[in-house]
Amino acid sequence: MTERLKRNLTMLTDFYELTMANGYFLNGFAEKTAYFDMFFRKVPDGGGFAIMAGLEQLIDYLKGLHFTKEDIDFLRQKGIFDDAFLQFLEEFSFSCDVWAVPEGTPVFPHEPIVTVRGPVMQAQFIETMVLLAINHPSLIATKANRICRAAKGRPVMEFGSRRAQGYDGAVYGARAAYIGGCVGTACTICERDFGIPALGTMAHSWVQMFDSELDAFRAYARAYPDSCTLLVDTYHTLKSGIPNAIRVFEEEIVPRGFRPAGVRIDSGDITYLSKKARRMLDEAGFPDCKIVASNSLDETIIQDMLLQGAQVDSFGVGERLITAASTPVFGGVYKLVAVEEGGEIVPKIKLSENVTKITTPGFKTSWRLFDRDSGKAIADVVTQFDENIDDTKPYTIFDPEHTWKRKTVQSFVARQLLVPVFEKGRCVYESPSVDEIKAYCTQQVGTLWDEVLRFENPHSYYVDLSEKVWKEKQRLLAEYHA
Amino acid sequence: MTERLKRNLTMLTDFYELTMANGYFLNGFAEKTAYFDMFFRKVPDGGGFAIMAGLEQLIDYLKGLHFTKEDIDFLRQKGIFDDAFLQFLEEFSFSCDVWAVPEGTPVFPHEPIVTVRGPVMQAQFIETMVLLAINHPSLIATKANRICRAAKGRPVMEFGSRRAQGYDGAVYGARAAYIGGCVGTACTICERDFGIPALGTMAHSWVQMFDSELDAFRAYARAYPDSCTLLVDTYHTLKSGIPNAIRVFEEEIVPRGFRPAGVRIDSGDITYLSKKARRMLDEAGFPDCKIVASNSLDETIIQDMLLQGAQVDSFGVGERLITAASTPVFGGVYKLVAVEEGGEIVPKIKLSENVTKITTPGFKTSWRLFDRDSGKAIADVVTQFDENIDDTKPYTIFDPEHTWKRKTVQSFVARQLLVPVFEKGRCVYESPSVDEIKAYCTQQVGTLWDEVLRFENPHSYYVDLSEKVWKEKQRLLAEYHA
Repeated sequence: MTERLKRNLTMLTDFYELTMANGYFLNGFAEKTAYFDMFFRKVPDGGGFAIMAGLEQLIDYLKGLHFTKEDIDFLRQKGIFDDAFLQFLEEFSFSCDVWAVPEGTPVFPHEPIVTVRGPVMQAQFIETMVLLAINHPSLIATKANRICRAAKGRPVMEFGSRRAQGYDGAVYGARAAYIGGCVGTACTICERDFGIPALGTMAHSWVQMFDSELDAFRAYARAYPDSCTLLVDTYHTLKSGIPNAIRVFEEEIVPRGFRPAGVRIDSGDITYLSKKARRMLDEAGFPDCKIVASNSLDETIIQDMLLQGAQVDSFGVGERLITAASTPVFGGVYKLVAVEEGGEIVPKIKLSENVTKITTPGFKTSWRLFDRDSGKAIADVVTQFDENIDDTKPYTIFDPEHTWKRKTVQSFVARQLLVPVFEKGRCVYESPSVDEIKAYCTQQVGTLWDEVLRFENPHSYYVDLSEKVWKEKQRLLAEYHA
Repeated sequence: MTERLKRNLTMLTDFYELTMANGYFLNGFAEKTAYFDMFFRKVPDGGGFAIMAGLEQLIDYLKGLHFTKEDIDFLRQKGIFDDAFLQFLEEFSFSCDVWAVPEGTPVFPHEPIVTVRGPVMQAQFIETMVLLAINHPSLIATKANRICRAAKGRPVMEFGSRRAQGYDGAVYGARAAYIGGCVGTACTICERDFGIPALGTMAHSWVQMFDSELDAFRAYARAYPDSCTLLVDTYHTLKSGIPNAIRVFEEEIVPRGFRPAGVRIDSGDITYLSKKARRMLDEAGFPDCKIVASNSLDETIIQDMLLQGAQVDSFGVGERLITAASTPVFGGVYKLVAVEEGGEIVPKIKLSENVTKITTPGFKTSWRLFDRDSGKAIADVVTQFDENIDDTKPYTIFDPEHTWKRKTVQSFVARQLLVPVFEKGRCVYESPSVDEIKAYCTQQVGTLWDEVLRFENPHSYYVDLSEKVWKEKQRLLAEYHA
């Protein structure tokens, strides 16, 4: 854990955060209290929900936030920053309040998933890293969850390090994939640093290094008799790989008192090959030998393989998971929603010619309403921060676009989604272990209706605004259009 | 530069590299000399070529390669590694030879871009990081080059940090984007660490922080009178943003003896808005005020905007560049191509039911043949390592698939693409500065014919095999099929 805390990423920030900070400073705004929300507008892959991840990274970053002397020297030589501002940076310490949705929670478009309150100079400055720390892991956790759901309970292993977008893409991507549902990763450093099981056996080069495939399998079986998974497609899966594997299981594994762990197929028509391989293994007396499939898999291909009866027991998923290849961007944004003027909170709106880019103003929080009987999530409601949803009474929700669509919810439990993470710069949140987050994620995804879970045309889960938030937004919209 | 060298990424490796290493060790293979090639099979986005990048990162990694006591302790508790092997790891130091294509070079499918020779345990072990270090930057450099070519000389700035896949995705992605042709980045740390210009002015939140857009523009203009670029789409680009910008240029910039730098449009129909804005700025006496466009741009949109006459002087490109969104994976692979047996180099092949996955065996190098008159690249030829291409004589190249397609090249210059990087573990290559790499990239892309450069159906550049390499491959194919 220490390695990751040693990195000083304070300067990993969009340059405009610094030009603005200097500008606020020069205008005497530096200490003015501002409120920012992080939210996203679209679920990747047209899915029904996303999985929140990356909060632990964000906490690491905020805890370590400081400008070194070298940073200040570097900024000084740019020749555009005020000396007093640079002095201020050198002495600065983080003092914002931060609320966030815990990792592993299903989240939906247009609700705050991180809210920051504090001196505008700071609250603005951290924008780039709030987004970078949350966007990427949430993208991968969401993708992993899709892939694991497609595998219908069969274990999915994350195998993508070599194709990740950079080192952190591999490491934090593997952590997010585990949260989303993967059982382990090929990325060794993730076990050392996060306790995520690191898995893997052999590459084709192992097989090539020996004089024959049989020799290669024998050598591996002798080295790892109790966990022997053999890669069977280096030369010919059915004519050579599987027969050689069976022979080695019989000659090297069984006599040592073990059972074979598995075979892996990494090319060719895996659906077809797996059925043939299954029969050959069964007939040889190894019905317990697992078949592992890899090679450019994702949720669509896995779903299709299983529909066609592929005899695959577990999946190794690489590049399409670690880059979320079909939608490789999680479009979280960080927007000013209010400022304090004379002790009062003044909501702020951003208009746009793109209607979906209009923000919801005000200092807010969000709630999830669960049906008391089924435990299923009914809707989320974004309220003002000091509003309460009393779940002992009926509560009427309405669609913020089509306000005549109304529903009165009864017999429900209301839970606040945002929890305090920093209070005046002091961290008040302890991240659960990655295993706890993973279990929580599974359990929370279980509260979603099938209509929200499906891949094709999922139901748009309700994210409604409270009457107060809605009216405030309408008021500001009308004001700017006048 | 030091920050990046401090990281110990030795354990960022696929777990199977370790199970194989231990297996080689137990089989007495550890010191057997093996040869590996990194190559790729497909250019992202269906393009005609890729740009090599990431070599400097790979060098950093290889220089720092070592197992700490903590790493060894971690591996020991896995309970599957031999004690003598762990002892060996603890004392190990890198001793391979490495050749690579310099950063910024256009590269093509099926030619070696990195070649490693050394004790198989080491040469195998570094697989994950060779691929990770090269795949990601090459992906982004290639994408950036496409985007910059679409912009036809207009500056392109990399603005994607917040949507990058992890911290390194942002930092090394920005470096790669600069190599590929971008003029700068929003990512501040890249200027501090790589000398890449960091750029940026203001976000929408700056405008929202003030009582009015006009106040916000005024405050910015006073803080940065000599480099004033205003973001004009917070409320309404044409009704409010541009008129307010003009007023502030007149009242705050011109009287101070400066000229306005620009306006930025980040939403709406930018082609339409830019034409209107251009006219308004011209009529106000600011024909020199640049118009900057941003908002989910890529090479396709930029090409389309320019075709429709968009009046845009420079582009800020974010998520679609920093993730190479349309093809977010660079599929480099690392394959065993030969081993030494009794002092002799024995070529190795990997067969596959997917024909494109068959490797080209042997210890090889690659050459680029340039036309002596035009300077244009004619073809690349993969030869055995000790073969020479004598460019004082005619040389016949042929298509390795359709061998009757032949061409005799005359009056050409042959240049070896792979250069020595490590000799017996000692680095013998000094990376050029990022500015030198960038200039070299531009110059080398200039040696490609228009037919290779175009986006739609580019010509497949010739990557041929020498007669010797081709015959060896055929021999091994025949041997395994017998």
